[in-house]
Amino acid sequence: MTDVLRYRPTAAELSYTFGGREPVARIKSGDILDTYTEDCFGGVVRGVGDLPSQVCEFPYLNPVTGPFYVESAEPGDTLALHFVSITPARDWAVSSTFPHFGALTATHTTAMLHEPLEERVWVYEIDKTNGLVRYTARNSDFTVDLPLDPMHGTVGLAPGAFEARMTIVPDVHGGNMDTPELRAGSTVYFGVNVPGALFALGDGHARQGQGEVSGVAVEAAMNTVVAVELIKGVATPTPRLETDDHLMSAGSARPLEDAFRMSQHDLVTWVADAGKLDVLDSYQLISQAGEAPVGNVCDANYTMVAKVAKRYLPSVDMYQGAHARLRALADSYR
Amino acid sequence: MTDVLRYRPTAAELSYTFGGREPVARIKSGDILDTYTEDCFGGVVRGVGDLPSQVCEFPYLNPVTGPFYVESAEPGDTLALHFVSITPARDWAVSSTFPHFGALTATHTTAMLHEPLEERVWVYEIDKTNGLVRYTARNSDFTVDLPLDPMHGTVGLAPGAFEARMTIVPDVHGGNMDTPELRAGSTVYFGVNVPGALFALGDGHARQGQGEVSGVAVEAAMNTVVAVELIKGVATPTPRLETDDHLMSAGSARPLEDAFRMSQHDLVTWVADAGKLDVLDSYQLISQAGEAPVGNVCDANYTMVAKVAKRYLPSVDMYQGAHARLRALADSYR
Amino acid sequence: MTDVLRYRPTAAELSYTFGGREPVARIKSGDILDTYTEDCFGGVVRGVGDLPSQVCEFPYLNPVTGPFYVESAEPGDTLALHFVSITPARDWAVSSTFPHFGALTATHTTAMLHEPLEERVWVYEIDKTNGLVRYTARNSDFTVDLPLDPMHGTVGLAPGAFEARMTIVPDVHGGNMDTPELRAGSTVYFGVNVPGALFALGDGHARQGQGEVSGVAVEAAMNTVVAVELIKGVATPTPRLETDDHLMSAGSARPLEDAFRMSQHDLVTWVADAGKLDVLDSYQLISQAGEAPVGNVCDANYTMVAKVAKRYLPSVDMYQGAHARLRALADSYR
Amino acid sequence: MTDVLRYRPTAAELSYTFGGREPVARIKSGDILDTYTEDCFGGVVRGVGDLPSQVCEFPYLNPVTGPFYVESAEPGDTLALHFVSITPARDWAVSSTFPHFGALTATHTTAMLHEPLEERVWVYEIDKTNGLVRYTARNSDFTVDLPLDPMHGTVGLAPGAFEARMTIVPDVHGGNMDTPELRAGSTVYFGVNVPGALFALGDGHARQGQGEVSGVAVEAAMNTVVAVELIKGVATPTPRLETDDHLMSAGSARPLEDAFRMSQHDLVTWVADAGKLDVLDSYQLISQAGEAPVGNVCDANYTMVAKVAKRYLPSVDMYQGAHARLRALADSYR
Repeated sequence: MTDVLRYRPTAAELSYTFGGREPVARIKSGDILDTYTEDCFGGVVRGVGDLPSQVCEFPYLNPVTGPFYVESAEPGDTLALHFVSITPARDWAVSSTFPHFGALTATHTTAMLHEPLEERVWVYEIDKTNGLVRYTARNSDFTVDLPLDPMHGTVGLAPGAFEARMTIVPDVHGGNMDTPELRAGSTVYFGVNVPGALFALGDGHARQGQGEVSGVAVEAAMNTVVAVELIKGVATPTPRLETDDHLMSAGSARPLEDAFRMSQHDLVTWVADAGKLDVLDSYQLISQAGEAPVGNVCDANYTMVAKVAKRYLPSVDMYQGAHARLRALADSYR
Repeated sequence: MTDVLRYRPTAAELSYTFGGREPVARIKSGDILDTYTEDCFGGVVRGVGDLPSQVCEFPYLNPVTGPFYVESAEPGDTLALHFVSITPARDWAVSSTFPHFGALTATHTTAMLHEPLEERVWVYEIDKTNGLVRYTARNSDFTVDLPLDPMHGTVGLAPGAFEARMTIVPDVHGGNMDTPELRAGSTVYFGVNVPGALFALGDGHARQGQGEVSGVAVEAAMNTVVAVELIKGVATPTPRLETDDHLMSAGSARPLEDAFRMSQHDLVTWVADAGKLDVLDSYQLISQAGEAPVGNVCDANYTMVAKVAKRYLPSVDMYQGAHARLRALADSYR
Repeated sequence: MTDVLRYRPTAAELSYTFGGREPVARIKSGDILDTYTEDCFGGVVRGVGDLPSQVCEFPYLNPVTGPFYVESAEPGDTLALHFVSITPARDWAVSSTFPHFGALTATHTTAMLHEPLEERVWVYEIDKTNGLVRYTARNSDFTVDLPLDPMHGTVGLAPGAFEARMTIVPDVHGGNMDTPELRAGSTVYFGVNVPGALFALGDGHARQGQGEVSGVAVEAAMNTVVAVELIKGVATPTPRLETDDHLMSAGSARPLEDAFRMSQHDLVTWVADAGKLDVLDSYQLISQAGEAPVGNVCDANYTMVAKVAKRYLPSVDMYQGAHARLRALADSYR
Repeated sequence: MTDVLRYRPTAAELSYTFGGREPVARIKSGDILDTYTEDCFGGVVRGVGDLPSQVCEFPYLNPVTGPFYVESAEPGDTLALHFVSITPARDWAVSSTFPHFGALTATHTTAMLHEPLEERVWVYEIDKTNGLVRYTARNSDFTVDLPLDPMHGTVGLAPGAFEARMTIVPDVHGGNMDTPELRAGSTVYFGVNVPGALFALGDGHARQGQGEVSGVAVEAAMNTVVAVELIKGVATPTPRLETDDHLMSAGSARPLEDAFRMSQHDLVTWVADAGKLDVLDSYQLISQAGEAPVGNVCDANYTMVAKVAKRYLPSVDMYQGAHARLRALADSYR
């Protein structure tokens, strides 16, 4: 029987790590979570005068809602989370530059002697009715409407090996992957590392470009509905995504070619295993039929996604048909 | 007046570098080139028994047709090449693994103590009528039809600074960028480095996946038509592409994040300059509206493309409207 | 008054993370710690038949002794640890290859389709009297004596931002930096992130080459003596080392050039600040006088050290003369 | 019979590429070359007011003397160059920052939105008698004497595959490796790619730090003597160095870990082949006994050197004892 867990966090309940936290609630396979996530700035950047480096305090950045304890989940299982809906909670969103953060600036690790770029905030209007977000230039009167395409930048489980990781780090446990592929209609699979899986999510984006080049997307609080399924006894080495039409593997690492390698390696071997193809035959097929949408090139690890249309693959129900079941569950909830 | 240069190279006329070669023919701005390019194996891999490392001889790989001398072209100008059509010249194409080449294998530079992966050839049937290429697994009976999507992996000009580069290297002069964005309908812009520009092209692909992960696409000889325009007195720092709907910048470097940075940096500053946007306003806009299609993650430099839909930008005719003129010229030729 | 804390951990007391653990003992500034560290294999690889992947269990690798709570230590302080002595606890040590670990093999992140290299163990004899370790080839009768040069691969504090990190990860909190510069006579400075600092150490090496290219050094249990000083109100952004003759900064990141950048950036700005040099004058001086000893090119982050002889710098007592005081304290203990 | 070729280039005879140039003179195996090299700025930066970006013109940077045609040299041979002496030709040398060049600044490839760092010149006094170079801060009165340690940043042969490369690029043909290991007393071995080998050298440094972090060393014109030996029928895959005490392999690539991998891979397999060690036994030995001196982390490719003391290796005369012969030849010339 499907239960719906409605959970709205208080500020004090927000989490800033994956791992190292007690669960905020418990949920079971087959249930639905209806929740709220604050934006990456904790909601305190509300106008162009609110410079993030002044109004936010490290490490209280990129809060996630959770973690949620999934009944019966144990290491070696896979947790499937299907995004039923992701809806901006406000009629505005914000973006910014941030000192020494982003792909086209010196950073903490790509350390240089440059002063930071100017810190600047952009406020976007969200028009849910027409599915638009409005960009407004700060130093001219140019504006343009971009498609609303809500997604979660951050979703993941507690990592293994007794680790706790800042929410801004993407790795094999998920985290801040910042891929636009993580939108409503997507199922994401994670390998479970600790009892209860302890999943959490946040960092909603009204939309983002591929690579999130400035380091900050169109950041938005979200009302989000997730359908949950636990797949017992099936391991998942790195986060995978499934939609009605595509399979995807995410890799998070530096340099960026290693993120690419991880994602492609996982997709090649996943398709080979599940589709009963020889590994080199799978390598060849993915080489010609695959896509490689960039996630982020700004976070502590960079994220690449390897993607292939199911229609080009041997027919197989991945994860025992979990995506189809979760789609049906999602339909029943709307 | 538009002239059509019809040129079919003999084997001896093929070139293996950009730079360091005498032109094979001369062409002027406003003309059309109707030519043929051999596949990256020089046409000698024709069946699954033709292992490239045995039938090909280094450095006689990845031949290009050209170079062509463009009348009046001088350093500081831009050469625009519009791909009118790219048509497979045969009803088959080939792909392979190649020892110590590709993204998921140890290579010359990512040097490791592993033996090479097995060298294997795949032959694809090309069905031009239905626009399909047929993949056939080698170690099982799986086959699948993929969309025919012809492109050129290699196109470029002679580099500057008295250099000559192997055709398999992509850099600011173009070369082996291996981006699927370089298909019929695309205009590519290059900065001219030497008198006559000396452009050449080759390495046709019946299709390729993003990243060309195995290092080898669906390699095909091509009959290709290109419309040429010389834009005097306008410099171009890195290859750029334009289609009816999109602007793109290509960056080629290692590690992959530097290819990403180069491509995004060029697109951000190009849009800022041409669109009269403040640079940070352009950075913000591209961050939310941009795409980042991967070219190759296997060549001597990796290639990333930064891409944005024109409809999200301030209205401007890039390169004095060259793309529209070349489209019209292309239409007149068909 | 100097107290000596003698602490020998039981197996159950070993730690596998920095952060997320209760302290095993308390110590105060000015005290000496006399302790024991197990080798990176937990002491279970004792002969050439003990393959690490069979006798060790992830994540119970690379144990550290600690953490130790330093009285009065608070975020914003610096903890100085001076290595008084590092003495192999046994007359043998071991090394090995390890599947998909090391610089010349495909790894988890540099993911490739190769099978792992052969897993093989080498046993070294340690001759403390003559200061030698004896290498013995496995597949021939070649042997050679190398200088005994004991060091700790892993030393660090609890990280900030509520994180807990596997001991095999080096980062700004220290961890598995694997630099041969961390030998007896060195003082290492860490920024304190949590109350009590919570330092721990382990992973003794009888010696290692620069870069630790195979991923495994000459691994040895150690009897180690450390002198401790807390420097209140002085922050340290990344681990720094000081010897009688040199200053060093360590940077841990990927790709390796970012580790290089972090280390050089810190040394340039540290020397500029402390030596009252203009930053570009310091950049110039370090560019000509500096060294860049490689730490590891195999761990989760790579580590580079930037190093300069004090005799080339403006005269200054770094950290209020902590190194000299700790040297004197060390002398008093011997 | 040993001949001495004395050659002093005119400005017009300087070369800016490896490859693509006619030889300036011919030399035979067993001969000595006594020559002059201009500094990397072509000698036009002579005071703190001579900003390189203003007084130098791209691509007329980093001139080399040569190329020299070596009689009988053919592809597949090895050319050994022994540096008999490297003597600063003037009593001063210069260094600088250079816009968007260096490890701690945004560059052409690590493209960012920062303005360049300030361009500044430092003039060094050279005291050949006492073996010192004097650093003088620009924005304070600090000065310090550093050891004079002359070396050549750039030495190499014509590349293969019909390429011509700018002298500032290091690769398997040598070029701008910028390693301080290339000093008097060193023999460097290169694989010959074209008839006559066509070697050239330049870019003298009165000294440099490891990594050449600012991108510019203590640049000096040099009077240099080189002894030449051609080793027929022996190939060399990447530049190697030999001194009385050490063997070294150089790797040039990006990212820096690939330069590290190339250098270590070559040293491991060279020692295995020549020393009749199993490859994994060699890997283990180099892992514990090896050094990894950084060359440059600023050029078009980064350079790392893998280095090991001969006394730790099986006894073997590398390259048929070429280094010892060249040492003897050098002694006879002094």
